[in-house]
Amino acid sequence: MKWYKIFTPELKELIDSKNLKGLSLILRELHPADIADIIRELEPTERVITLRVLNKTTIAEVFSLLDPDEEEEMLGYFTERRAKAILQEMSPDDRTQLLDELPASVVKRLLNLFPVEEREEANILLNYPPDSAGRVMTTEYVDLKTEITVSEALEHIRKTGPDRETIYTCYAINEKRVLCGVVSLRDIILAEPDQKISQIMNENVYKVNTTDDQEEAAKAIQKYDFLSLPVVDSENRLVGIITVDDILDIVEEEATEDFHKMAAIQLPEERYFRAGYFKQLSGRVVWLFVLVLAATISGKVLQKYSLALSSIIALAYFIPMLMGAGGNIGSQSSTLVIRALATGELALKQWWQVLVREAVAGVVIGAALGTTAFFIAIFLLQNTMLGITVGISVATVVTVGNLAGAATPLIFSYFRLDPAIVSAPLITTIIDVTGIIIYFEIARRILSVPG
Amino acid sequence: MKWYKIFTPELKELIDSKNLKGLSLILRELHPADIADIIRELEPTERVITLRVLNKTTIAEVFSLLDPDEEEEMLGYFTERRAKAILQEMSPDDRTQLLDELPASVVKRLLNLFPVEEREEANILLNYPPDSAGRVMTTEYVDLKTEITVSEALEHIRKTGPDRETIYTCYAINEKRVLCGVVSLRDIILAEPDQKISQIMNENVYKVNTTDDQEEAAKAIQKYDFLSLPVVDSENRLVGIITVDDILDIVEEEATEDFHKMAAIQLPEERYFRAGYFKQLSGRVVWLFVLVLAATISGKVLQKYSLALSSIIALAYFIPMLMGAGGNIGSQSSTLVIRALATGELALKQWWQVLVREAVAGVVIGAALGTTAFFIAIFLLQNTMLGITVGISVATVVTVGNLAGAATPLIFSYFRLDPAIVSAPLITTIIDVTGIIIYFEIARRILSVPG
Repeated sequence: MKWYKIFTPELKELIDSKNLKGLSLILRELHPADIADIIRELEPTERVITLRVLNKTTIAEVFSLLDPDEEEEMLGYFTERRAKAILQEMSPDDRTQLLDELPASVVKRLLNLFPVEEREEANILLNYPPDSAGRVMTTEYVDLKTEITVSEALEHIRKTGPDRETIYTCYAINEKRVLCGVVSLRDIILAEPDQKISQIMNENVYKVNTTDDQEEAAKAIQKYDFLSLPVVDSENRLVGIITVDDILDIVEEEATEDFHKMAAIQLPEERYFRAGYFKQLSGRVVWLFVLVLAATISGKVLQKYSLALSSIIALAYFIPMLMGAGGNIGSQSSTLVIRALATGELALKQWWQVLVREAVAGVVIGAALGTTAFFIAIFLLQNTMLGITVGISVATVVTVGNLAGAATPLIFSYFRLDPAIVSAPLITTIIDVTGIIIYFEIARRILSVPG
Repeated sequence: MKWYKIFTPELKELIDSKNLKGLSLILRELHPADIADIIRELEPTERVITLRVLNKTTIAEVFSLLDPDEEEEMLGYFTERRAKAILQEMSPDDRTQLLDELPASVVKRLLNLFPVEEREEANILLNYPPDSAGRVMTTEYVDLKTEITVSEALEHIRKTGPDRETIYTCYAINEKRVLCGVVSLRDIILAEPDQKISQIMNENVYKVNTTDDQEEAAKAIQKYDFLSLPVVDSENRLVGIITVDDILDIVEEEATEDFHKMAAIQLPEERYFRAGYFKQLSGRVVWLFVLVLAATISGKVLQKYSLALSSIIALAYFIPMLMGAGGNIGSQSSTLVIRALATGELALKQWWQVLVREAVAGVVIGAALGTTAFFIAIFLLQNTMLGITVGISVATVVTVGNLAGAATPLIFSYFRLDPAIVSAPLITTIIDVTGIIIYFEIARRILSVPG
């Protein structure tokens, strides 16, 4: 059902033949999200023509769906007056996001187009910390005074509704703009016309502060199935709302961020193509560099066991298996724990339960894999004592690796570090060194090789 | 702001002192999601008392937030008549989810409590394939005949609204129940009372089919910021809707599923504690077993190079570094590509762009890490030729590993396999074997050791 794929060739033809009337008729039928997709596929001159036939409300909506660099390019197509009109049509949170990522000189020039009070509003939103509730909130909400009646409220919604991001959840405030309650349009529709808002509102309002992390807002909306969440300042005055559609994007972004962290990638931007190529490279190479340095320790440890190694060269054959088994089980248990912590299913105070669970799992899986390794070694080399050495080593490394993988994110979480930075590569490198020591110590005892 | 933590001790006291009145007063103020959290913390006898003071609507809401095993346990607290009342209060999608995971005998017994037509409805929902739109949809939507007026529509919404999951998006149908358009409560409120629904509805309705995957519904709701999405049967008749709050859960579940797949964990259930312990174990051990078998190949390859290894035992010291560098960069590039494919940012047809990008990245990062490895080898062993061997090998393995990590999920995607099953462990194992061969072939040439 990719509408825009069907329409793009047809639109290109209309643009080529300068049929602006036909173009505008088709575009009117499309959703802004589809228009944004189409615009991405067009040549610059085609873009200019397409944008010309759209009204400013649609352009503002399309803009809020584009990426900042695309927005900046397209703003350049317009006169200053028209650019201003488009920015004014955008909802405050989308406008903030655009201004936030444009070069400072462009922001200053654009802001100067606005009347003083709107300029101040934009500046206020831009001053909240990144990823805070204040940054993602919109100021286009419906507020209702507690003392008005349901019919007055409906009248107010009818009048102000067209400009608001949502009218389905309204917030009741007193004369000092302090948040007193929440009332849904559903409640208003179902109430008697002469009831007061204070009678039908729900006084238990879940709210977040402007400086709270956006993730807290996301968690609340997810848990309580809200359509929007009020944002208050330090004096409990209503200053904005966060809507569920923004939360959907936040949930996906946060997941991507965790995916990247867990693969030891540090990126300022979640998207593959949008992240600057060199930023992406440097975000990857830093960790790899650290991990190569850490692998030096494995080398150093092996060097310490060089006598054992040269007397039974076959010991080297099983280093990849040993390191693989330990690293793989470590990534499994760390992923399980990191993700359970991220979704809120697991609380830090349950650490004891997790460790017992994973210790038992490690022993069971270790026994199974150790037995397998024993038979593989015998199959490869027909040497029972070596088989026993490899089997016991794999079993031990798997048990230790599983426990280390589960414990490390818990320890990070305890020290208030993000557990997601416990990447699979980090765990693997830690387990590698431990694994080699375990292996050669067991070999020394069983095969009586020199240590 | 964890409300329930504040209330739990207070509630326990009220329960102990059998103060049912006080208990019901407090519970009435709480959100069902908080009540669900509190109930989880209570002892079985305390649960029975708490559930007794709640009305059936609240219990139904609380139930829809619990896990199936908890629901089953608590249904056991009630008489059959009360269990039936609670199930009837639940919305059809939540009820389906409960019935879906209960043992077949319990389902049969419960369904027999219902009148024939409701039993049929439940059976229909249960017959859609797992993870399909039909499974997650609810049948509690507002439909409006196209020929009625706005004021008639408002009257209809007022009458049926209290039972509906959402009244904010209504769907226009003709006399054959075919979906004709969508009209938001906002449009209705803002329209003139005597306009017809057919005049104000939007005929461009995005819809999904009952058998479509729930992910398609999730993608559409995310892209177009819908509050709900209509579900139609093969004859385009409206049969249900999917609401945004269900989509939030789906997005999170799908991300968790991908996290697990990428760590080579195969689980029928996304949550850490809820997944049966032995199911979780077997979901982990299968892949680990395969990977240990695959590591046998690395062992076999090393055995082939045993002459080289025994003539220069120091070659073994760098096996961990080489395998680590190749494996780590492979997990990075596979994670970037898998996640970009999952969020829809990357389309398969862009494969060429990705490969060029990652080939260049591999060469750049390879050069950096290779140089580092060169100096590390010299620092450890003061042997320039060995340093050159290690440096070139690390650079080559990193380049190859980066490309393999990016290419494998694209190949999986091409063959319509889920790219997320390209786990870091799988990539690592593939690169291990390749890395060892590259290393010893380079060593043979530079150090002129026997091959």
